[in-house]
Amino acid sequence: MSAMIDGRQTGGQPAGEVRRSDFANARPVEVRRAIREGRWTGVTHGMARGHIHANLAIVRKHDAFDFLRFCLRNPKPCPVLEVCEPGSPEPVGLAEGADLRTDLPGYRVWRDGSLVDSPADVRALWRDDLVAFLIGCSFTFERALLANGLPVRHVEQGRNVPMYRTARECTPAGRFAGPLVVSMRPMTPEQAIRATQVTSRYPGVHGAPVHVGDPGALGIEDLAAPDYGDPVEIRDGEVPVFWACGVTPQAVAAASRPSLMITHAPGHMFLTDLDDDRLAVL
Amino acid sequence: MSAMIDGRQTGGQPAGEVRRSDFANARPVEVRRAIREGRWTGVTHGMARGHIHANLAIVRKHDAFDFLRFCLRNPKPCPVLEVCEPGSPEPVGLAEGADLRTDLPGYRVWRDGSLVDSPADVRALWRDDLVAFLIGCSFTFERALLANGLPVRHVEQGRNVPMYRTARECTPAGRFAGPLVVSMRPMTPEQAIRATQVTSRYPGVHGAPVHVGDPGALGIEDLAAPDYGDPVEIRDGEVPVFWACGVTPQAVAAASRPSLMITHAPGHMFLTDLDDDRLAVL
Repeated sequence: MSAMIDGRQTGGQPAGEVRRSDFANARPVEVRRAIREGRWTGVTHGMARGHIHANLAIVRKHDAFDFLRFCLRNPKPCPVLEVCEPGSPEPVGLAEGADLRTDLPGYRVWRDGSLVDSPADVRALWRDDLVAFLIGCSFTFERALLANGLPVRHVEQGRNVPMYRTARECTPAGRFAGPLVVSMRPMTPEQAIRATQVTSRYPGVHGAPVHVGDPGALGIEDLAAPDYGDPVEIRDGEVPVFWACGVTPQAVAAASRPSLMITHAPGHMFLTDLDDDRLAVL
Repeated sequence: MSAMIDGRQTGGQPAGEVRRSDFANARPVEVRRAIREGRWTGVTHGMARGHIHANLAIVRKHDAFDFLRFCLRNPKPCPVLEVCEPGSPEPVGLAEGADLRTDLPGYRVWRDGSLVDSPADVRALWRDDLVAFLIGCSFTFERALLANGLPVRHVEQGRNVPMYRTARECTPAGRFAGPLVVSMRPMTPEQAIRATQVTSRYPGVHGAPVHVGDPGALGIEDLAAPDYGDPVEIRDGEVPVFWACGVTPQAVAAASRPSLMITHAPGHMFLTDLDDDRLAVL
């Protein structure tokens, strides 16, 4: 299963002539078009800078109320940005005219809790009884971290952010339950304090960290072996800083086994038209 | 219809030997017990100071997903604090052991969009297919306003806060649509600026004002004739400051006509165990 998705998980340059840097200052609609046309199949961090990236989770309508309650009970990993009309793949609030079946650079299909496919689009799977959820992504606050002179190591190293399944259980709702997934960025303790202030302004994209310092406290055994994404360098004097992560619904799919869930591939986000600042508080 | 509820709408002292001031520093569980035992039937502002008051909306399960989507699309009037388990009247997150069928001092029952009853409890109406929603109430930020030296006129005057149906439509979701309802507090423009800062910290209880100054801009014809609650004095040099209000679901019930909706009576809130500060950002 892991081999099947390795190509999609890395932050390296995808096949084709385009480069990530070509899209740094692109408009989100241009990035979505490039993705829809197959010209970009890699991770999205650093693309269309200043715009909100979103996690995707699609469930069947009879699971949608439970899933939405799950998100509300777990607002740090699952801050809901938009719930589409049942049967519609268009997120009219965040990106009018976009198509969630084609506009992400990588998908994952979960059946009865098993990852069964990682297609480039999900048009063939679409049904009238599906409901699409867009959930905030920490890529949004990384611009604010960088603007505050704080390190974002995976961006420095040109990799996907490292993500880990933790031993912490989310608050269940209906049929949905499962472990919290976190992303990690190494920083000095002083930087971690400033990063806490900065990310507290963005509760819609996971907000403040959930833990600083001890991976073992979260049940993470080896920082060099993330469950999703790529490992990054931790330098002398740095501590790992953990944020709740929008990949949590994928761990929840595995644990809760709904008959069908469709998600983005980790790091392969949906680019919305919304400016980062629209989610900032105070 | 109005006569039926007049007794419940006013902020005056209810029948019985207890006074509002007896409960100013009470624990929420004590207020809920007094209400459950029929010792308090009036509005709740100023009671169990420092704890979050909540609006109630109960819908049938087949309407619950649409209603929850409606709330998420209209977070200023309908900030969701808790969605109970379908069939359960206990808000385990906000007040373990409480019973939403008995612990509010006044209810309203809406059938097909019409207000048909204003009972003291709703035990006889409870069914396994009902889902209870608790929604933030502006009474929570009034303590912060007072602490900042800002006037809260209806508290000064011992009345219920004045509330108005506006000409502004909420964003619809599924079967739910209807006008925004606002509460109003008069202040000087300088005080309104400070009040905007203070209430911005509390997005979970309606957050910043939606309008300052011109009732006509909201389609409000006469500030002296609120649609819910009591009128309050506006002094020289003061302007009306309007906040989105958790009575909005009641106007939405009237407009959208679900077969059944049960709400609190305006001003007759549910007292949660949560400290006000738990909802503050930054």
